[in-house]
Amino acid sequence: MRRIVQVGLGPVGVSLARTVVERVGLELVGAADSSPDLAGRDLGEILGLGRFGVLVGADAGEVVDATNPDIVLHATSSHLPEAEAQIRALLSKGVSVISTCEELSYPFYRHPALAQELDAIAVDRGVILLGTGVNPGFVMDKLVATLLGACRSVDRVRVRRVVDASLRRGPLQKKIGAGITVSEFEDRARAGRIGHVGLAESAHMLADVLGVGAERVVSERLAPRIAERAARTDFVLVEPGQVAGVEHLVVVEAGGRERVRLALEMFVGAQSSVDEVAIDGSPSLEMTIPGGIHGDQGTANVVVNCACLLDRLAPGLRTMLDVPLRLALEAR
Amino acid sequence: MRRIVQVGLGPVGVSLARTVVERVGLELVGAADSSPDLAGRDLGEILGLGRFGVLVGADAGEVVDATNPDIVLHATSSHLPEAEAQIRALLSKGVSVISTCEELSYPFYRHPALAQELDAIAVDRGVILLGTGVNPGFVMDKLVATLLGACRSVDRVRVRRVVDASLRRGPLQKKIGAGITVSEFEDRARAGRIGHVGLAESAHMLADVLGVGAERVVSERLAPRIAERAARTDFVLVEPGQVAGVEHLVVVEAGGRERVRLALEMFVGAQSSVDEVAIDGSPSLEMTIPGGIHGDQGTANVVVNCACLLDRLAPGLRTMLDVPLRLALEAR
Repeated sequence: MRRIVQVGLGPVGVSLARTVVERVGLELVGAADSSPDLAGRDLGEILGLGRFGVLVGADAGEVVDATNPDIVLHATSSHLPEAEAQIRALLSKGVSVISTCEELSYPFYRHPALAQELDAIAVDRGVILLGTGVNPGFVMDKLVATLLGACRSVDRVRVRRVVDASLRRGPLQKKIGAGITVSEFEDRARAGRIGHVGLAESAHMLADVLGVGAERVVSERLAPRIAERAARTDFVLVEPGQVAGVEHLVVVEAGGRERVRLALEMFVGAQSSVDEVAIDGSPSLEMTIPGGIHGDQGTANVVVNCACLLDRLAPGLRTMLDVPLRLALEAR
Repeated sequence: MRRIVQVGLGPVGVSLARTVVERVGLELVGAADSSPDLAGRDLGEILGLGRFGVLVGADAGEVVDATNPDIVLHATSSHLPEAEAQIRALLSKGVSVISTCEELSYPFYRHPALAQELDAIAVDRGVILLGTGVNPGFVMDKLVATLLGACRSVDRVRVRRVVDASLRRGPLQKKIGAGITVSEFEDRARAGRIGHVGLAESAHMLADVLGVGAERVVSERLAPRIAERAARTDFVLVEPGQVAGVEHLVVVEAGGRERVRLALEMFVGAQSSVDEVAIDGSPSLEMTIPGGIHGDQGTANVVVNCACLLDRLAPGLRTMLDVPLRLALEAR
């Protein structure tokens, strides 16, 4: 039985903790969140599962000291510089950490020095640090890398993910700018406060898999998707002409040739969610997942399956390229 | 640089060896085949790559002694009892073995005692034994298991693979009975000398992933696919009313419910090859690979990618569930 502590009880953290509770082989022994709305309350009640008799702590380190978990599931920030002090402290206590921090999923290009430091701490303490989720972590990188396992050489891989954000959590709808004006979108885009985090991480992972060298050129483009008709969700109202969401594109080129193209269209009112992969190579391959893989629940599922498989990894900072991912319901 | 010896130079072995030659990081240092047509000939000439100055040996053990490889790629038989003496001898020499022997891909149910013995030898010698290929090994098991990594629970998984055997190697067309009569098909089916080997192995792997217990009931059905019109390949002529190939079905049930259904339709004249996965679960998912993944070249690609990743595995008898499969062109 692996003992789990959940750090961060926003929508993603709550989804993680609920998924831990239902998974045989994992035991949710504690949780922490710095928000005064959550700290001190009963964990089971926050999860909507009835009273557990376990109170949410305000300080992650104190919860870990009191509960001695094997693994912390960490869901506080998309950005590694905001998450790293806490992750560093948790690793130093000798506990493995799986984080949904998007920039941690493949941090070797955006945060190379930080990646090296965190790896050194994890190796030193004999524990594992892994950043994952459904995107980044699965649908636009790990699943694609696995499909590429049937290839001998590849010129280019293209992945397109269309997500109907109407069905997603409120913070995500805000993160993609649903309901704001185009000029607000542009202001936020300039400030780096809009869009999906992690697409460049997925692109770098795939570029590595393809053997693209350090001469790679990565370009990123973020554009608003404009609503053609009004749309209302549980969280926002989008008027025609307002922003419905984002179109986010990352391209990796090398030697003047396009090698990786990741296109994420995430907006309120998308008619048909889909995940599509097109490989130009030997052999060329196409893969389609009609309806796409739902993000919020998918993240919890990927994280919890990784938690069950974590003892297969060597200590250090690992990525999804290291994980033999699968549904992990059995013990073989 | 990993040193590779190829054992078995039938169509699959030749495809493996050619793929090794073109892969940076692998070096083909020798080969063995017991056939008098091959032993003593120049390896490069057999591969259609010009003279290597390396002769094919008749005895795998002698070739290994002379060349000291890290890994043997083994492609001699679909059936583990026919391959096991040679595999055992190779492991005992302290060399890792990746075999395309279909029954080795997940041998814990058809050959449990043999699986245990081979595991013990590999552990004792600190080497790895892995059975893989495109099917079994990838398209109806590993790729599906990876997709299941986005799920929390699954009622049933169905995989359907349609292969136009017209485009496949001659021995495969014969193995599926293309061009024989229905009564010949039935005779051969009774003798276990027809059809695809490995479908039950894939089904057991997926049943394990789903957490289906030992109470599982596995049923297998092999039926001839009758040609409606004449078809000619490079190897056989199929007349209307003759057998065009096989329809092979394996179903795993538990507690009266169907949990895994694998359907393989492999025949000369199939109009549209395809690989399809349908998951009933949380979440339900569908995946389609139009055109399907080509078998012969796919097997070589999967095996060679596994060879590049082999040092990530613990010693012993491993399966594709242990391999973090991907295209392995880089060194990270």
